[in-house]
Amino acid sequence: MANFDCIIRNARCATASDVFEADIGIVDGIITALGKKLSGGEKEIDAGGRWVLPGGIDGHCHFDQPTEDGTVMADDFLSGTRSAACGGTTTVIPFALQRKGQSLREAVEDYHRRAEGKATIDYAFHLIVTDPTPHVLDEELPALIAEGYTSFKIYMTYDELKLADRQIIDVLAVAREEGALVMVHAENADCISWLTERLLRAGKTAPRYHAESRPMLAEREATHRAITFAELVDVPILIVHVSGREAIEQIRWAQGNGLRIYGETCPQYLFLTAEDLGGEDDVEGVKCICSPPPRDKANQKVVWDALESGAFHVFSSDHAPFRFSGHDGKLATGSAPSFDKVANGIPGVETRLGLLFSHGVEKGRIDINQFVALTSTNVAKMYGLYPRKGTIAIGADADLVIWETGGQKVINNNDLHHNVDYTPYEGIEINAWPLITMSRGRVVWRDGQYLGQPDLGEFLPCARPAMATPKPFWEER
Amino acid sequence: MANFDCIIRNARCATASDVFEADIGIVDGIITALGKKLSGGEKEIDAGGRWVLPGGIDGHCHFDQPTEDGTVMADDFLSGTRSAACGGTTTVIPFALQRKGQSLREAVEDYHRRAEGKATIDYAFHLIVTDPTPHVLDEELPALIAEGYTSFKIYMTYDELKLADRQIIDVLAVAREEGALVMVHAENADCISWLTERLLRAGKTAPRYHAESRPMLAEREATHRAITFAELVDVPILIVHVSGREAIEQIRWAQGNGLRIYGETCPQYLFLTAEDLGGEDDVEGVKCICSPPPRDKANQKVVWDALESGAFHVFSSDHAPFRFSGHDGKLATGSAPSFDKVANGIPGVETRLGLLFSHGVEKGRIDINQFVALTSTNVAKMYGLYPRKGTIAIGADADLVIWETGGQKVINNNDLHHNVDYTPYEGIEINAWPLITMSRGRVVWRDGQYLGQPDLGEFLPCARPAMATPKPFWEER
Amino acid sequence: MANFDCIIRNARCATASDVFEADIGIVDGIITALGKKLSGGEKEIDAGGRWVLPGGIDGHCHFDQPTEDGTVMADDFLSGTRSAACGGTTTVIPFALQRKGQSLREAVEDYHRRAEGKATIDYAFHLIVTDPTPHVLDEELPALIAEGYTSFKIYMTYDELKLADRQIIDVLAVAREEGALVMVHAENADCISWLTERLLRAGKTAPRYHAESRPMLAEREATHRAITFAELVDVPILIVHVSGREAIEQIRWAQGNGLRIYGETCPQYLFLTAEDLGGEDDVEGVKCICSPPPRDKANQKVVWDALESGAFHVFSSDHAPFRFSGHDGKLATGSAPSFDKVANGIPGVETRLGLLFSHGVEKGRIDINQFVALTSTNVAKMYGLYPRKGTIAIGADADLVIWETGGQKVINNNDLHHNVDYTPYEGIEINAWPLITMSRGRVVWRDGQYLGQPDLGEFLPCARPAMATPKPFWEER
Amino acid sequence: MANFDCIIRNARCATASDVFEADIGIVDGIITALGKKLSGGEKEIDAGGRWVLPGGIDGHCHFDQPTEDGTVMADDFLSGTRSAACGGTTTVIPFALQRKGQSLREAVEDYHRRAEGKATIDYAFHLIVTDPTPHVLDEELPALIAEGYTSFKIYMTYDELKLADRQIIDVLAVAREEGALVMVHAENADCISWLTERLLRAGKTAPRYHAESRPMLAEREATHRAITFAELVDVPILIVHVSGREAIEQIRWAQGNGLRIYGETCPQYLFLTAEDLGGEDDVEGVKCICSPPPRDKANQKVVWDALESGAFHVFSSDHAPFRFSGHDGKLATGSAPSFDKVANGIPGVETRLGLLFSHGVEKGRIDINQFVALTSTNVAKMYGLYPRKGTIAIGADADLVIWETGGQKVINNNDLHHNVDYTPYEGIEINAWPLITMSRGRVVWRDGQYLGQPDLGEFLPCARPAMATPKPFWEER
Repeated sequence: MANFDCIIRNARCATASDVFEADIGIVDGIITALGKKLSGGEKEIDAGGRWVLPGGIDGHCHFDQPTEDGTVMADDFLSGTRSAACGGTTTVIPFALQRKGQSLREAVEDYHRRAEGKATIDYAFHLIVTDPTPHVLDEELPALIAEGYTSFKIYMTYDELKLADRQIIDVLAVAREEGALVMVHAENADCISWLTERLLRAGKTAPRYHAESRPMLAEREATHRAITFAELVDVPILIVHVSGREAIEQIRWAQGNGLRIYGETCPQYLFLTAEDLGGEDDVEGVKCICSPPPRDKANQKVVWDALESGAFHVFSSDHAPFRFSGHDGKLATGSAPSFDKVANGIPGVETRLGLLFSHGVEKGRIDINQFVALTSTNVAKMYGLYPRKGTIAIGADADLVIWETGGQKVINNNDLHHNVDYTPYEGIEINAWPLITMSRGRVVWRDGQYLGQPDLGEFLPCARPAMATPKPFWEER
Repeated sequence: MANFDCIIRNARCATASDVFEADIGIVDGIITALGKKLSGGEKEIDAGGRWVLPGGIDGHCHFDQPTEDGTVMADDFLSGTRSAACGGTTTVIPFALQRKGQSLREAVEDYHRRAEGKATIDYAFHLIVTDPTPHVLDEELPALIAEGYTSFKIYMTYDELKLADRQIIDVLAVAREEGALVMVHAENADCISWLTERLLRAGKTAPRYHAESRPMLAEREATHRAITFAELVDVPILIVHVSGREAIEQIRWAQGNGLRIYGETCPQYLFLTAEDLGGEDDVEGVKCICSPPPRDKANQKVVWDALESGAFHVFSSDHAPFRFSGHDGKLATGSAPSFDKVANGIPGVETRLGLLFSHGVEKGRIDINQFVALTSTNVAKMYGLYPRKGTIAIGADADLVIWETGGQKVINNNDLHHNVDYTPYEGIEINAWPLITMSRGRVVWRDGQYLGQPDLGEFLPCARPAMATPKPFWEER
Repeated sequence: MANFDCIIRNARCATASDVFEADIGIVDGIITALGKKLSGGEKEIDAGGRWVLPGGIDGHCHFDQPTEDGTVMADDFLSGTRSAACGGTTTVIPFALQRKGQSLREAVEDYHRRAEGKATIDYAFHLIVTDPTPHVLDEELPALIAEGYTSFKIYMTYDELKLADRQIIDVLAVAREEGALVMVHAENADCISWLTERLLRAGKTAPRYHAESRPMLAEREATHRAITFAELVDVPILIVHVSGREAIEQIRWAQGNGLRIYGETCPQYLFLTAEDLGGEDDVEGVKCICSPPPRDKANQKVVWDALESGAFHVFSSDHAPFRFSGHDGKLATGSAPSFDKVANGIPGVETRLGLLFSHGVEKGRIDINQFVALTSTNVAKMYGLYPRKGTIAIGADADLVIWETGGQKVINNNDLHHNVDYTPYEGIEINAWPLITMSRGRVVWRDGQYLGQPDLGEFLPCARPAMATPKPFWEER
Repeated sequence: MANFDCIIRNARCATASDVFEADIGIVDGIITALGKKLSGGEKEIDAGGRWVLPGGIDGHCHFDQPTEDGTVMADDFLSGTRSAACGGTTTVIPFALQRKGQSLREAVEDYHRRAEGKATIDYAFHLIVTDPTPHVLDEELPALIAEGYTSFKIYMTYDELKLADRQIIDVLAVAREEGALVMVHAENADCISWLTERLLRAGKTAPRYHAESRPMLAEREATHRAITFAELVDVPILIVHVSGREAIEQIRWAQGNGLRIYGETCPQYLFLTAEDLGGEDDVEGVKCICSPPPRDKANQKVVWDALESGAFHVFSSDHAPFRFSGHDGKLATGSAPSFDKVANGIPGVETRLGLLFSHGVEKGRIDINQFVALTSTNVAKMYGLYPRKGTIAIGADADLVIWETGGQKVINNNDLHHNVDYTPYEGIEINAWPLITMSRGRVVWRDGQYLGQPDLGEFLPCARPAMATPKPFWEER
């Protein structure tokens, strides 16, 4: 009789803190044993001494999200989770967006319908709160948190999404009361709109002006303000997609003053710069339009340093799958659009891990444990999925990735599995990529073949994360 | 036939990043399996769902260290490692001190003689470099590093120990070249001596003036200077026993500017204040004389915050076992000594873990993973003992502690196992303490009984630690 | 024939940078000569070697200002300028407040009517912009600036006054275009209202909760935000009535990063603390209710240090003359009001100079030149009244104060000349006060006698201040 | 009978705080009247509405200073003061250097001999303390301070000059006790020597490596250390010739923390960069070798910002007149010397004012009052020469400069009056220069003609400067 459904042999395992060589025994999709020379596997996979890491968790990605202006996202849960799996990600946490006037509950139900039967890997939902009515604050949010939607994102910019200061405070107060974690998109809306109007009046409409319309000061200010509100309410928050020095300095300042402020950054701030938005007539620049915009080389270094030294806690893709061309694309009209009309966001769910592994771990900027922490363990903890997800440990789901390293590849959109017609990372060299991705014990990606099925993924209700807990009051011993 | 020499059942394990419930299988003192319902143990220990953590590693303690003035330390390797084991520590790294004029090699050999046949748990040595002659720099240090003495401490204060600036730079350069880690005692010697002279001239000799003679500015300045030298040479360093805000701000500043500067703090900066040095006529105050001195309540909070937010990487005891009374005591003469004549240092190898667990983990200031990281895993990594030491993982030594929590105890020197006649932490409540300490699979402490033997401990040569690696030069992608 | 209408002999003069002994010759209210042994004065005043300083300019005071809720200010231009003159102030710059819906022009005209025939000393007006409609921004402000109303205050708090972020940016843009200076009351309205609601719900209505409802973080955040908007628009601004460390750190940060951010503080932040708001049942505490609230002793020191080191540029009273008792008083109803219903503001136009001279100059915290700069010269420059006002120099108005120093007095409301029935500074010792105040050559205060007349003061149109000029763009040499 | 020896008519005067139009009446070399239409001048000079400013005071220049290695300075008091006068400077404060082993008294006497009968303008002496023996500390310094040598410079670098930390503290303690001001050359000697050795070993000897051998971190560290010692002893100090961001941040930090730390910068940090040291084979680069070295364009902006915002208090030349060629020149041997053998220092006493006026005042980076403060008034105050020197006020020496502005000139060494065969500022455009320089009422430079005489200048004993006074202890009101 087999002890295990599957044994992964000769695994060079890494967790967020450890490295060890072991065989991994799996039963019913769960890791039940780690040991030297396990026996009795129905199936065996020989990792051959390669790195075996917890599958990635992408804590910030958008799939099939309806937009105000009717733009359709290229990836639904089918292509989105397929692309994720092929890139080594085994859990995604996209957003259930509340439209203004809509009930949060409706948004969540709508989103479940979008996901059902399509996801090849497990998923949870963040909420996006855009209309915090008393009903939402007092009833829907507490109920939804209790049901497993324990994190929500709020926006300080975008007319159709942004909350007023008092609304932000009210949402944070609910988060504190109910034990949920708030993610903040921190950019000052009015700075941006004022600059945008001036640029447009001056006829400056090319993609490159997107970056000029959203300078770092707008991000710095909103970050400081969000931190202040978190301090006021005494609740931890996560500042998402942090782009460079000025916002990082605010986060460090808060951490240094005893506040629990978490930070997230994304591949675009390590691998792109504002120059990728192109020159005056460069229509291709729209491919890199996202917010906050990528900054410059000096800021890339600052972001790497912050990753290395612990100012950031999670590394996400902020996958926002808008096509470049076509009637739903960033260039819907076929000609150069004004920067302020281009859909904000870039794809990246599949390239996130390979980029960071290659340019982070392999180049010695972060170590293998930091890689696991930033891309998986901390994400699971941040959003209440730990210890089921995010690690290689007894009792955890067998969401595992065997990594091929040491080779050389160039990122090419033809090799990717999303529905977007470009990748902003085209042409970047990588030397690490997933050989096998396993989701709850099932192989969904192997040797360049997608082996998933649209109904393998399950919805994951999230627990209240410890990361959302305020610090204990200081007391004398 | 038994699969395991011992199985620990029902363990609620924590590593520096994970928490899981498992049985732990041990063969030849090594963890060879983690799993649900392991079978075939020759011996079994039921942890009963209690926390089972990696044994503590005390990366900063002094045993049987000869001093210039002939003061004898109360703890040799026998009592020192006994005390450590009873407090949940399974590895110690005391110092082999080079006296000026002495060869480092001699110091190491002398120290091996002192340890041999006495240690109940495993041990490694840091070197203390006080006389970096060309011979020491060019020959002894490289050879000793290669042999497993990969960390050394240098002093910026104490006449008989301190290095000049150029000597510090030269030592750092060797560390960079050879891949060793330098620990820095950072206090400005001249600030201290100038203040001391003024205090003595004013007849201010009570223990409390020890704190006045070593203000935070002296620590801040030396910390900044050490950081500058590390930046110059491009090598990571560890600032040891950091006491409060001003030095922490320097460390954070360095980390925020992309430098690999590590920090250590100790129980005295969380649990003592300068007030514990007593009043004008308070002889007992000598019990808390250590350097840097404890500061105040506000600084305790700053130290806790720095522990929580990652500014510190290791938490050590700086155990310096001087007796209070007796001919070798701090009060050798029987009457009140001048503060500058009192041996600097306090005992703490046994109380370190219980204090931090009780007031850190149990009160919610740090989580269980941070506890493991600060007291064990990071220490092992910092000094090249990882992955043999510092974690619960396949292949690691079975250095394990089963913790009793939820009760209530008061620290009482009668319950401790060192040879010192007091503890500065007398009377502090704790609610977590080791039930069982296991060193390489052997139980050395159980239910209040010391079960060790003086020849169980082995010397551990240290690998070159990854923590000593400079950052890669920044290159464009 | 007399060369001078008046000669002040033996004057120990101080300007914002100099100290010299001279006779001062005055013709037609203007200083026409400084020299040794001037001759030919129709009248002579012997200063007897005492300090003769430029008359104070109070750049922040409220007289006869209509309020939303109908509260009447106790001081109109008659009593307000009388009180100022008796305290050594020779120019005041109160505010012409635009009510929402009102035209700015109307507000100015209304205010001229209130001042006409009542002021004993010269005066200018700041505008308060509460409703920046396109008409106000595009037409009224440019026209009024051209006519001599070159500074305006905006509020980030108070429902009836505060501007939204975009309005602030728009007002700053007009200021930049037209060369005007914007004064900012920086407190985050939503933080305050959220806290206030919670305090009231908890039944915490005593005056002391005023301070709790407006913590320093609310001031810090708004200060950072205002600085960001100034950076965005590239225009200098003045942060008024700064209360303590957190806002000061923001101002210093901005100054250190090359921004022209000016700071003002007031006597309440040097001489009062939150403790002056009293205990749970202390109705008298309303006497010290102002916003931002006074902080604590440690913050007083920080404010003094900032005065000394140049982080602040002007020192004003923020005189807001609400009576303690009576039907218009802070205690209108006769019983304890809720802190949020009490009129915000305290009197201080008469005590400003004596307090700063006594506790600043006489105690050696600032020097005599800093005193003159902070209370007079910088104010004149900040608001476009220089060189007519603010100094002792050829061509300047003979607005002069002869100071008595070296004695000892206690502030007593009976000795003051405002219409308010209390002073928050009651009982504070001073050892410097005005012996003679001269406004354009006429003595309006002498030896404790008020000698002014209600029609001596003139309206002063303000020039565009150099302080409002953005920095030149940086260019390579 | 004439009232005045001389009247300067139609002067547009500026002091450190004021601007006024007046006639200036002079008797016996002293300003005795300022007024409209003064009458009775024996002589008259019509300033024609031009700026008339206090003559410059160069608080940091080296004349005829003996060096260890026998290098002879090109300027003695004759050419040095001539060059100063032609550039608008009317007082110089060079250094009396104590050689190790020498008595300070001897150094001062020697220096008086060097100056006697040669100076065309007034002068004072700073001391350079290199050998603070008990005799120097306890007897010579107090006596010399009492006699008018109230400022002294100490070095933290240069083998033959530098003090050890304890010596610095001892010197600061004397300064505190006696009321003198200490100027600090802050660079870490050991960082520099370590880097220099490595560069030389690598064959990197070109002038450009001078900058690499003295990175900003060496200046930052020493600045922090000096500040710490000043904090310890509780005495103000002046950090001289500050070169860029890292040292400025330390100074601002200290000022922001309530310490009286003053800063000086020099033209080389506004107008030169490390690139002026040339390329690999660029011998001319030695012309710009000074310490600390000039940094880069970004740091120039930081220095300008610090000048503008008040982080710096004085602006000096650090004139160090070493010739480029010839047997005493920087290129004594005729061929390329090793960077570490080149005399450190550059000439600049004549160009200091014109450069700052043209690129500071005329370009709007600082105002005319800041110019006067930085180049004259603050210097006089810093070193105890005020109010005799440093201003235009009744009783002050008639040290005045009438400035020509609005034209265009290019700096050309042929037009300068020092004995150095080059200027590092060759080719820089200026649009402001002295038309007339007047020293105590005598014209020493007019319309391009030097009119001085070698015996006009007098030695000025310095009073104890107020700038040297520690802050009062903080007390509650």
